Amino acid sequence: MHLLFDPLFDRGGYAAHFSDAAWLEAMLRFEVALARAACDCGLLPEAAAQAIEAAAEPSCFDAAALGREAISGGNPAIPLVAALRRRVAAIDGDAARFVHFGATSQDVVDTALILCARAAWERLAGDLRRLLAALLARMETHPRTLRVARTLLQHALPTRFALELALLIDALLRHRERMAQARDRIFALQLGGAVGTRAAFGAKAREVGERLAAQLGLSCPLLPWHTSRDRILELAFTLAGLASLLAKMHRDVALSAQNELGELHEPAKPARGSSSTLPHKRNPIGATLALAAYARMIPGVSALLAAAPQEFARGVGGWHAEWHTVAELFVATGHMLALAIETIAGLEVDEARMAANLEHSLGLVFAEAVRDRLAAALGYGEARRRIDEACARVLRERRPLREVLMADPALRPHLDESLFDPESQLVAADLLIEETRRRAHRALAEKEKPDG
Amino acid sequence: MHLLFDPLFDRGGYAAHFSDAAWLEAMLRFEVALARAACDCGLLPEAAAQAIEAAAEPSCFDAAALGREAISGGNPAIPLVAALRRRVAAIDGDAARFVHFGATSQDVVDTALILCARAAWERLAGDLRRLLAALLARMETHPRTLRVARTLLQHALPTRFALELALLIDALLRHRERMAQARDRIFALQLGGAVGTRAAFGAKAREVGERLAAQLGLSCPLLPWHTSRDRILELAFTLAGLASLLAKMHRDVALSAQNELGELHEPAKPARGSSSTLPHKRNPIGATLALAAYARMIPGVSALLAAAPQEFARGVGGWHAEWHTVAELFVATGHMLALAIETIAGLEVDEARMAANLEHSLGLVFAEAVRDRLAAALGYGEARRRIDEACARVLRERRPLREVLMADPALRPHLDESLFDPESQLVAADLLIEETRRRAHRALAEKEKPDG
Amino acid sequence: MHLLFDPLFDRGGYAAHFSDAAWLEAMLRFEVALARAACDCGLLPEAAAQAIEAAAEPSCFDAAALGREAISGGNPAIPLVAALRRRVAAIDGDAARFVHFGATSQDVVDTALILCARAAWERLAGDLRRLLAALLARMETHPRTLRVARTLLQHALPTRFALELALLIDALLRHRERMAQARDRIFALQLGGAVGTRAAFGAKAREVGERLAAQLGLSCPLLPWHTSRDRILELAFTLAGLASLLAKMHRDVALSAQNELGELHEPAKPARGSSSTLPHKRNPIGATLALAAYARMIPGVSALLAAAPQEFARGVGGWHAEWHTVAELFVATGHMLALAIETIAGLEVDEARMAANLEHSLGLVFAEAVRDRLAAALGYGEARRRIDEACARVLRERRPLREVLMADPALRPHLDESLFDPESQLVAADLLIEETRRRAHRALAEKEKPDG
Amino acid sequence: MHLLFDPLFDRGGYAAHFSDAAWLEAMLRFEVALARAACDCGLLPEAAAQAIEAAAEPSCFDAAALGREAISGGNPAIPLVAALRRRVAAIDGDAARFVHFGATSQDVVDTALILCARAAWERLAGDLRRLLAALLARMETHPRTLRVARTLLQHALPTRFALELALLIDALLRHRERMAQARDRIFALQLGGAVGTRAAFGAKAREVGERLAAQLGLSCPLLPWHTSRDRILELAFTLAGLASLLAKMHRDVALSAQNELGELHEPAKPARGSSSTLPHKRNPIGATLALAAYARMIPGVSALLAAAPQEFARGVGGWHAEWHTVAELFVATGHMLALAIETIAGLEVDEARMAANLEHSLGLVFAEAVRDRLAAALGYGEARRRIDEACARVLRERRPLREVLMADPALRPHLDESLFDPESQLVAADLLIEETRRRAHRALAEKEKPDG
Repeated sequence: MHLLFDPLFDRGGYAAHFSDAAWLEAMLRFEVALARAACDCGLLPEAAAQAIEAAAEPSCFDAAALGREAISGGNPAIPLVAALRRRVAAIDGDAARFVHFGATSQDVVDTALILCARAAWERLAGDLRRLLAALLARMETHPRTLRVARTLLQHALPTRFALELALLIDALLRHRERMAQARDRIFALQLGGAVGTRAAFGAKAREVGERLAAQLGLSCPLLPWHTSRDRILELAFTLAGLASLLAKMHRDVALSAQNELGELHEPAKPARGSSSTLPHKRNPIGATLALAAYARMIPGVSALLAAAPQEFARGVGGWHAEWHTVAELFVATGHMLALAIETIAGLEVDEARMAANLEHSLGLVFAEAVRDRLAAALGYGEARRRIDEACARVLRERRPLREVLMADPALRPHLDESLFDPESQLVAADLLIEETRRRAHRALAEKEKPDG
Repeated sequence: MHLLFDPLFDRGGYAAHFSDAAWLEAMLRFEVALARAACDCGLLPEAAAQAIEAAAEPSCFDAAALGREAISGGNPAIPLVAALRRRVAAIDGDAARFVHFGATSQDVVDTALILCARAAWERLAGDLRRLLAALLARMETHPRTLRVARTLLQHALPTRFALELALLIDALLRHRERMAQARDRIFALQLGGAVGTRAAFGAKAREVGERLAAQLGLSCPLLPWHTSRDRILELAFTLAGLASLLAKMHRDVALSAQNELGELHEPAKPARGSSSTLPHKRNPIGATLALAAYARMIPGVSALLAAAPQEFARGVGGWHAEWHTVAELFVATGHMLALAIETIAGLEVDEARMAANLEHSLGLVFAEAVRDRLAAALGYGEARRRIDEACARVLRERRPLREVLMADPALRPHLDESLFDPESQLVAADLLIEETRRRAHRALAEKEKPDG
Repeated sequence: MHLLFDPLFDRGGYAAHFSDAAWLEAMLRFEVALARAACDCGLLPEAAAQAIEAAAEPSCFDAAALGREAISGGNPAIPLVAALRRRVAAIDGDAARFVHFGATSQDVVDTALILCARAAWERLAGDLRRLLAALLARMETHPRTLRVARTLLQHALPTRFALELALLIDALLRHRERMAQARDRIFALQLGGAVGTRAAFGAKAREVGERLAAQLGLSCPLLPWHTSRDRILELAFTLAGLASLLAKMHRDVALSAQNELGELHEPAKPARGSSSTLPHKRNPIGATLALAAYARMIPGVSALLAAAPQEFARGVGGWHAEWHTVAELFVATGHMLALAIETIAGLEVDEARMAANLEHSLGLVFAEAVRDRLAAALGYGEARRRIDEACARVLRERRPLREVLMADPALRPHLDESLFDPESQLVAADLLIEETRRRAHRALAEKEKPDG
Repeated sequence: MHLLFDPLFDRGGYAAHFSDAAWLEAMLRFEVALARAACDCGLLPEAAAQAIEAAAEPSCFDAAALGREAISGGNPAIPLVAALRRRVAAIDGDAARFVHFGATSQDVVDTALILCARAAWERLAGDLRRLLAALLARMETHPRTLRVARTLLQHALPTRFALELALLIDALLRHRERMAQARDRIFALQLGGAVGTRAAFGAKAREVGERLAAQLGLSCPLLPWHTSRDRILELAFTLAGLASLLAKMHRDVALSAQNELGELHEPAKPARGSSSTLPHKRNPIGATLALAAYARMIPGVSALLAAAPQEFARGVGGWHAEWHTVAELFVATGHMLALAIETIAGLEVDEARMAANLEHSLGLVFAEAVRDRLAAALGYGEARRRIDEACARVLRERRPLREVLMADPALRPHLDESLFDPESQLVAADLLIEETRRRAHRALAEKEKPDG
């Protein structure tokens, strides 16, 4: 299925971070670093550490064979360790017994998953920054463009297109803050030995852990976390939260691209959005593929929540359900992010259609402001009654609200033209846009940390 | 990720039914059959139908290239049709315009998905039959073996191991019945043209549909179903329902294999259930990998439910979310079924441990029957009070209930030995077992239909 | 929370079928019918059966007290049986011991759930019929109204509004078929005794079951189903499948009601769809409340799938998760169905806007048909190139496709006016509409069975 | 349904935080504080603010009537505002027009939900602290108790019961850290006016927001968040993450209480864990009701993720799906927490059974350590072969591993008694326990902040 369909669901190319090669590299990196750390703590001889390092060349391992052998133990670390031990034995007979010293399969697989995930996370942080920059640029290109805001898919009040962008930027900055807070908690070494007692390391357990974590660039928690899957859940939650915002953005673009609205269009590329049968169609393919990914992604969070309460020191299946799921969550989020960057960067904004659609309401979007003004003169009840009548007439006669109201000598004295000017409603909005613009610039100016 | 991990999640090999090759073959089969059907209805010339058939050789298409091109239109049918058209044009210039005649991408993709799914479904029906046979054989090997039944993980009453098997068989027969009823409804041709009007076929639309369906061996519904995804949901529900039963079976095996219970064990194979660190472990790997698959499968149903209410005549993403999801549901169900067959066929049943664990309860499992007997003599309230006292004493003194009760001169006259004999409680159970055995034989004796 | 919010989520009033009163009545009905059945089989005296019947007056039981006591055993059947026994004892001291004879809590609760669910199911069948009738009436009112069909939210081809209705009717008829097939399988007596052995009934077990089921109007399966929750799942699947179609219908109405489209509107009622602040708004409240219910409903299916693989003869929590969930699925489905009936019955169809929106495409919706015609004359490649050019010009110059093409002397000879007439594309569609109309009439003419 | 069943799913009583009364109080509190804030900014007269405050007495509003009226606008804020306006008008005719000044329904409902949720959150923080204290006390009561650790439900290695508790404490401390980081982000004022432009407040918008937030004790974000539901998601994620740990804890208790294991039991209370039929049963009811709640809770997170990508400035149903769901997540988490506190505080720890079960393994749990020792002498391959043989013999002959190995003259010289002493494997574990103990004391000693 993969060649035909996968490009439709991995626009960001994040699957590469969870490929066979990435996993093999990460698992072997764990084994090498473990030997080095244990050696530095005096638990195994230098020669053994060197032999393990020499033997752990990823290209010498056969993923297909390891996968076939994985079935008997239920995870690929078992055959990998066996293969590594054989290669070490060929170099240094005694060193074989120090391979995987004090560790269990879950230590290797959990830590390797965390290493793969961190690489994907760093890329995500970069892509998030790029999306922020694209949104900010877009906001600065259209700082005052008017648009009708819609609630429950109905015209409500005038707004600025830039305020809608500001709301996205604001939420993205919040996601960055969450990612920064979660980072060290999530990207933590797992080292417990068979059941979490770190039995083989004895009094040196803490030192081994710290040295190992340092080598892998991970944080070193006091306790192992084989039984507490909250780190995996936090990772999933962070991705899903971000993805939900991207889904909202893509959905709004698709709705805005409807022929009758025509306010926004995904960037046109030759053959982008083409149909197998309809020569004239211009489909919102970015939104389509993003929303398809999101629909498939939501359940991944449920799967991890269902898998999290694992029996005793290692669950019957719960642990094993995590591997693909975490990878899929990253691929989907990265995919949606890549599509979002493409869409925002190349977005076609039809300001004329935005203005025309705002006009289409015949001024009904000003009814609230007028009612509040009339209420000061006539009382709330009377004002509401009058406005309801006027709105009904607007719809019946297809005449603008302004015209209907101004024609009424009882109302005209209380009204003025500014009430029918969208700008009068956007004083606060402009302040929000400007403040968001400043915050976004500050955020983008911060020196990006090397790791995220 | 696939070489290292996929063998752990596709024990049944069902992924092959949804491979690139399977999809290509199914999509091309649709195009060839469409041309033939339209030709037989007089809508296109014989030469065109022949050219299309000649050109539609799956091995001549490059799945990777098609996948890359799929991104612009959002599905692989668009580039496939274009490639097919080029190949047809090289054979017969005029025939090119008849490729994909009157159809839309969704017609190709939906029908191809249904064709792939049907092949997987037929295999599933065979595997289900094999599991039934294995359970029946197991029931006949242990027709009267006693075991303690557990509710809320606590000893409750004696039962027969064969009754537990009968309950599984009964549920599987119900699943077979559902599959038989759903089959023709699910495996139906999709043919609507761009929006479901079958515009290009005019008055011949019905005949084209019927001829096309007949060629593909599918049912031919009156209307297209591009907007009503209930067939896809029904497929998912059928698989998920079956899988939930398999999950229950695997979970019970894992629980029964706990060291302190030791009543059932998955078949021992060299290295099956081995640990990377613990030489003595014998892990229930079949159950582990089955339950991992189930945890990941449940959400697939949610994804399809979320995707089902698609906008107008084709949704923004909902449709695209179906393809991988349906495949994954089949792979997971087939995987669990394959593991179930292995486990039941090779199950190690430790009758001695079953008997010992039943003894472990010190006869408390007979308390209910004794209470009912005493109630006839002493009234319910007094009987309940006496029994509660006796049970407490059994637990305190670790003496069998029979002994405690028989030592009480006020109670002994109302009791007899048969009350402490599990067999006395199993009269009805034996009838259920025997009747289920007969039904299972009848079901297996039915001539298997060629297609499921 | 309930008074303020529940009316928004139970438009159909289905919660009443799962109220305290409904549950109490159903549980007591089980106990009375069990006593009668056992008595008729000679397992308990007539006097006991009569005492139990006399005591089992629902209004004499205090739901709040039973709820408080339920916590110790984990379900309300335990305190209910105790309370019933006390009431029976007051009538006939010896009869007390025959209360709940041979049954366990799960027998009472499962069968009561099934009884409550069946009443809700019967109502659902009636509501489904009403929706079918409303759709059919709507189809007959607008048999030939043209509308543009949209795929991926973009204009695609002309269709008939009646065909969209026909597609809904077709899917609803399929749901009726499923409901008919599932009915007896789902609404089945549960009777197993503590662990499914029916120990207390001995050789009379089958007869007791059959008499009991007959009294309750349920089917009587051979085996108990406390360990096989496929009936509960099948119930959930049936509801969810139906709800997904209703969600699709409501979503399409909301999209069609957008100001710029304005093709369909939910029925106007005073204050229906009003806003707290915007006097002019007319919100699609029916769709809003239906889609809110659907979003909350999807996960119920997952919850039941997660709960289904229960440990041994009664799970640790899985069983208990079913009760509210099943009720919620019914309430949500009934709510969506009630809203759908209201919406379809009072739907405002703006045929003028439908026609105007179809015009809006400037004839691009005919491009496919024109291309196919030109391909016959010029070959597919040349025809495609020409049409692509013409479509681009239509969009650039805002001139109708017909005009653009007819102005080209190279193309005009191959074209005729009928190509730009939507009717020419709807020959097949009209046959589908007519055939669906006939089927719907036949389905509605069928004598409704008393029970569903 | 509620009286009979709800006590089984709300052991913590958290539903009260989301009752009609709580919602009414919170919504009215918003309206009063809004009037005060706008008044202090000079946007409305002091008399109006006072009239609104006087009129907003919760007990004067009829929740049932408001609920019935809510259907027309889709939320209860609309009728509430209308009712409040009527009450204000009776006090001060002119003040009526200042009711709900500049706000929209979503401002009221979102902020009220946040206020209700914060009260529940504060209680949760207290309950979490109590659970930590109970776990710590339990750890200090059993600091060195040995237990066999189980992976995949099979005996693996010896561990300490206190280490298992330490792992729970460690995860709970992480959850506290997350709660502290998320608190101000989640509990934020929503104030946007109809579409987020804060149109009515003009240049005073920021000041109104800050004053309003200050009065309600909420944080005041720069922008409204009606379109970015990440705060609601973060709330859900935090609860679900905590609940998953509680589910793990309860599941392990239920498994440990199995008759054959008998290591842990929930606290015995009269009638706690009783059965309707089985006088001797002692069911793990706390775990049962906790796991039932968890199964129903997981999908709530999915529902919120599905609802989050809302259309434009207010979604068609997505927003409305949040209210019950958030309440249910709190009720479920509080319920599981209350049950956890009860269970841990009253847990019966059977140290003798723990020891006996560890013995049950015949020393196989030492096989790994022995193998590593032998590997130093014989090389890894030979050591592994020897140990595999020895383990097989242990199982075949039911003799302890120590005995089997010591009987072999080739092996005895390399071995010593300490290898068969669990204590020798627990040096690192004891350090972890001690360090966790210290951290837990420090965490509990921190002055609890007044608000969480």
